[in-house]
Amino acid sequence: QQQHRPARAKTDCQIQSLNAREPTRKFDSEAGTTEFWERDLEEFECAGVAAVRNNIQPQGLLLPHYNNAPQLIYIVQGRGLLGLVIPGCAETFETPQSERRTRGEQSREAESHGGDRHQKVRQFQQGDVLALPAGFTLWLYNNGQENLVTVALLDTANPINQLDLEFRHFFLAGNPHPKGLSGSRYEEEIKSRSEQHLQSGNFIDGYDPDLIAKVFNVDRELVTRLEGREDQRGQIIRAERFDVLSPEFEQEQPYRPGRERPRPNGLEQTICTMRLRENLGRPSRADVYNPRGGRVSTLNSNKLPILNWLQLSAERGVLYQASLYLRLIYGNRNAVMAPYWNTNAHSIIYIIRGNGRFQVVGDAGNSVFDGEVKEGQMIIVPQNFAIVKKAGDQGLEYIAFKTNDQAMTNPLAGRLSAIRAMPEEVLMNSYQISRQDARRLKYNREEATVFAGRRSTGHST
Amino acid sequence: QQQHRPARAKTDCQIQSLNAREPTRKFDSEAGTTEFWERDLEEFECAGVAAVRNNIQPQGLLLPHYNNAPQLIYIVQGRGLLGLVIPGCAETFETPQSERRTRGEQSREAESHGGDRHQKVRQFQQGDVLALPAGFTLWLYNNGQENLVTVALLDTANPINQLDLEFRHFFLAGNPHPKGLSGSRYEEEIKSRSEQHLQSGNFIDGYDPDLIAKVFNVDRELVTRLEGREDQRGQIIRAERFDVLSPEFEQEQPYRPGRERPRPNGLEQTICTMRLRENLGRPSRADVYNPRGGRVSTLNSNKLPILNWLQLSAERGVLYQASLYLRLIYGNRNAVMAPYWNTNAHSIIYIIRGNGRFQVVGDAGNSVFDGEVKEGQMIIVPQNFAIVKKAGDQGLEYIAFKTNDQAMTNPLAGRLSAIRAMPEEVLMNSYQISRQDARRLKYNREEATVFAGRRSTGHST
Amino acid sequence: QQQHRPARAKTDCQIQSLNAREPTRKFDSEAGTTEFWERDLEEFECAGVAAVRNNIQPQGLLLPHYNNAPQLIYIVQGRGLLGLVIPGCAETFETPQSERRTRGEQSREAESHGGDRHQKVRQFQQGDVLALPAGFTLWLYNNGQENLVTVALLDTANPINQLDLEFRHFFLAGNPHPKGLSGSRYEEEIKSRSEQHLQSGNFIDGYDPDLIAKVFNVDRELVTRLEGREDQRGQIIRAERFDVLSPEFEQEQPYRPGRERPRPNGLEQTICTMRLRENLGRPSRADVYNPRGGRVSTLNSNKLPILNWLQLSAERGVLYQASLYLRLIYGNRNAVMAPYWNTNAHSIIYIIRGNGRFQVVGDAGNSVFDGEVKEGQMIIVPQNFAIVKKAGDQGLEYIAFKTNDQAMTNPLAGRLSAIRAMPEEVLMNSYQISRQDARRLKYNREEATVFAGRRSTGHST
Repeated sequence: QQQHRPARAKTDCQIQSLNAREPTRKFDSEAGTTEFWERDLEEFECAGVAAVRNNIQPQGLLLPHYNNAPQLIYIVQGRGLLGLVIPGCAETFETPQSERRTRGEQSREAESHGGDRHQKVRQFQQGDVLALPAGFTLWLYNNGQENLVTVALLDTANPINQLDLEFRHFFLAGNPHPKGLSGSRYEEEIKSRSEQHLQSGNFIDGYDPDLIAKVFNVDRELVTRLEGREDQRGQIIRAERFDVLSPEFEQEQPYRPGRERPRPNGLEQTICTMRLRENLGRPSRADVYNPRGGRVSTLNSNKLPILNWLQLSAERGVLYQASLYLRLIYGNRNAVMAPYWNTNAHSIIYIIRGNGRFQVVGDAGNSVFDGEVKEGQMIIVPQNFAIVKKAGDQGLEYIAFKTNDQAMTNPLAGRLSAIRAMPEEVLMNSYQISRQDARRLKYNREEATVFAGRRSTGHST
Repeated sequence: QQQHRPARAKTDCQIQSLNAREPTRKFDSEAGTTEFWERDLEEFECAGVAAVRNNIQPQGLLLPHYNNAPQLIYIVQGRGLLGLVIPGCAETFETPQSERRTRGEQSREAESHGGDRHQKVRQFQQGDVLALPAGFTLWLYNNGQENLVTVALLDTANPINQLDLEFRHFFLAGNPHPKGLSGSRYEEEIKSRSEQHLQSGNFIDGYDPDLIAKVFNVDRELVTRLEGREDQRGQIIRAERFDVLSPEFEQEQPYRPGRERPRPNGLEQTICTMRLRENLGRPSRADVYNPRGGRVSTLNSNKLPILNWLQLSAERGVLYQASLYLRLIYGNRNAVMAPYWNTNAHSIIYIIRGNGRFQVVGDAGNSVFDGEVKEGQMIIVPQNFAIVKKAGDQGLEYIAFKTNDQAMTNPLAGRLSAIRAMPEEVLMNSYQISRQDARRLKYNREEATVFAGRRSTGHST
Repeated sequence: QQQHRPARAKTDCQIQSLNAREPTRKFDSEAGTTEFWERDLEEFECAGVAAVRNNIQPQGLLLPHYNNAPQLIYIVQGRGLLGLVIPGCAETFETPQSERRTRGEQSREAESHGGDRHQKVRQFQQGDVLALPAGFTLWLYNNGQENLVTVALLDTANPINQLDLEFRHFFLAGNPHPKGLSGSRYEEEIKSRSEQHLQSGNFIDGYDPDLIAKVFNVDRELVTRLEGREDQRGQIIRAERFDVLSPEFEQEQPYRPGRERPRPNGLEQTICTMRLRENLGRPSRADVYNPRGGRVSTLNSNKLPILNWLQLSAERGVLYQASLYLRLIYGNRNAVMAPYWNTNAHSIIYIIRGNGRFQVVGDAGNSVFDGEVKEGQMIIVPQNFAIVKKAGDQGLEYIAFKTNDQAMTNPLAGRLSAIRAMPEEVLMNSYQISRQDARRLKYNREEATVFAGRRSTGHST
């Protein structure tokens, strides 16, 4: 399955130093805020990605829109509903006619159609990763009690995006760029464009209103609502009545091998019912686990087939802080993740919670980052660059988005490492060390990739 | 089948406005003309394509050549023969020896070879789309009574082209760039090159003639003919005797599912006998049909498997003008095609016949085109940009080439639309409208994507 | 299998002339030399490749490193061992414990682990092509009696490389850029970087030594050895004791169809045991053979499946010089290879032995190269450009690396040619020649693609 690998756009990657970044541009809307990471940064251009964080209040609705890039969304906090409109798929969720009647609605439309009818609506919750294709209309709704916080990676260098590397969104409704909001350079350019033309920024407003009236076969007054020029609510609006049909929320089905890679038998069976979501938050979901060090959960296209289409994958890691006892007695003994490099992907790491210290080394062994990282920051580690992650005193939780659906890492130390896989003779000669020392290098660290912070005295665990 | 998607070259797509373009450069040849669309235009660079229109007189032969880009050719008018030389495939068309004898030819070659023998020759006619790979030698011949008019899209950003985005052709014969012809900037550069070196522009002339004589094992006089320096006929020559062997022309086989996607069992069965042609002109071929609005025929890699290799697809649409009666009574009631965007492709639209009005909207809802289009014009609609097409008083016929073998559109209005697929609650809150109005938006237009121009009073058709 | 074709990075290819190039930058190391071809040359940028030649003395070890680009290595001379560390694969080569004991080693590590254990080590010899993925650690060792000479093509425009087109290597050990060595612009930049930071250029040195000590669970003294700052041996070191475990070297298994394209059933069966090597040197391996002309051996992904992943292929050709007798009687009668173009790949040709004359023609028939080539030179022929190869008086041996795993050529003359595949009428009209002459063009050269140099008097061989 490694064989067919679409190419990403080639970009400039003369990275001399990296930084842990926070979003620099903030939009306030009626029921939430949207924050963008600066798009002109060297490392974002090298990786060919953009990133957005949304904070949606309870009853907040992120207006329907589509993007020119596929995205992975990580649900940092809260729960919600996702609508993804897939062209050509059937409206398979419907309110029974009788139910509508009891609500006292007897319009002609309800009569003839038997209540509302729409495409599948999906639920999600904290710890989920949502995988969303480019070009399809989507909306998010916070139906929980606390704020819904999402971090999205938008892969503009993805083969699916045939436009340039600029991230673009197309709103179907509202006035996503009303006056008086601050935003990014691109957003501001759009806003100034909108102001010049007195447009709302939603694309229906770009058309001749008579044509829109004709196309929808509705009157001009309704078209004025669609244009949304007077709308001052922004991208995230408050929607108090929102009784969308949705089945009871169940825990996600566990992954069952053999069932997950359906052969493509037509649109109905593949795209329309494709799974878009997997939870990486539950400890029991871990793929790597060291009770004294931490755990790592990976999500690739073997587990979530749509990722093969999106050419993206993700990894969620938790590195434990040392117990107070250990810290008092031995000094810093927080967990460490083995130095490794991504052989076939860029890695875009967002710190979900806690803090830590990262060290990143580029080609020719030059250090490009050595510093603290903390909750809310993002750091991009280019392909082949080597990174060490160390938990801080609050522990460290991160989500890493990767620009390959089968991202592969290569650890330098530990049980799965390059060092251990090489013959002693190679190590002895390369490093000019004794056989004894070569064996220490190979076997003193028996753990896989997540290391407890303690210094052991031998190679046995 | 969406999973493996090769990437196109990334280009700059800061499109502020589009135009309906006619070709700007014209070459006259002995038996026809060749017209190029300007290659430096913003939207052509964004889409990574070039376009050429040929007008070949009866008995005209477009000289053998190959391109660095795969192409789709639409046959606007006339009929002809296509020769595509696929390396390694057998010469499967042969003139029986006896037949040759009756023609009075008794050369040693004819004796020993039993007449002429060559690779498959294919016939085509008005309404056909021809799908041609890059790098393979091809020639076209007009064996009909009227001029053969073709419009070709050359996909230079295609993964198959490993050179840059410049469109290049390599002629095997003739003098495609003789003195005294006008042409495009690139053509002119080639011509000035040719003139400096006193070359013909056909690539045999680039070699040492002694070497060519040796390689073909023929004498120098014949090589002088191959070089073609004295040839003043241009790219399209008159070929009066042209009795190439070819089976009786039959109507194309209808598409039979299950037979179309052969497993690759070796060159013989896949490339050499691959179908390169499908007719999109016949009304019965329509995929979408509204007797009062028009029809749309689509051609993707499910129907013509070679398109999977070329990563291209096509769509032919006919939008009807209103009857005189309707126009007199109601004013303009010509057909409209639902606003839609291409989710995964650029769309390059050529107007075959008639006229109409297009409106195109880009990101942030800014209008990038609102104007008349007419026969012979081309307009490029970038991925994700939304377009409305409306027939003029002569009706409108177009062919759209798309840069994805499974190009997908997403209509905004109508039975297959994004609006209809969303819950009423989303529409009510997004547009601040009543449930009644939300239902009007969803259900007032029952047609799929081609709308009759009349304003109905309800949602039933 | 042609269908899914990942895209290469698009580069500029306005090639007006080509050159046969020798490497311009040379690094001396303790046990060998490394030579780079200039990376800024027009044709290398067009093809998106880099090239390196290593000359490794007996007992020389090329230090463990990985690259950002996949590579094909041709073994020009000698024999050796290859270690390729594939992450996640098992250490399947192990020294039995008893054997270790008899060597008198009784360390605790040996006790518990039963001798050394490492991943597969592969042998190779003159005439082999090695196909190596990007991002995986590799080392080479010369275990033969003569110098090991390798020429490597590094495909930086490959889809697997998500960084830019710069070729990068990452050393795991040693001091690959010690002071006092000359090198390429890039190398020099790295060296100046290293000198500024007093670093060794191996990436372990980029980390905090305390962290490395912790990660490997070893003491600081050993870390100092890993950093390699005092190491003055360069990239290729002398390793006198090097008794790495390796099975007896056997002749490579012949290619057996039906066994070669294993379905991907998981890492164990695909990547870890994948065949990386095929010998193109043996005359019996030829795919095209003309006893008076020469022979050609091709290697594509049908024969070596990993090439499908790497999107590369290779071709080795031998063109014979004429016998002294023929040369005295007839003048130059050395073998010629039919003019051809690569339909879907760039071709990077390295002259292994002998000499010859190449002629290359670009678009619009302009000659871009016409000159002598000789042992040790490299010439890049871009996609679609047409080339003729002619042996010199020492004969000519070359290896051509191609940027497509199913590279296809299209000869202009000979039994498989484009000329022969076209109807006589097309040739007669295009070249304005008689039917007689058209038949001479088609049939006077009966050989496939490698032509004996003699001028025959008829078309029969």
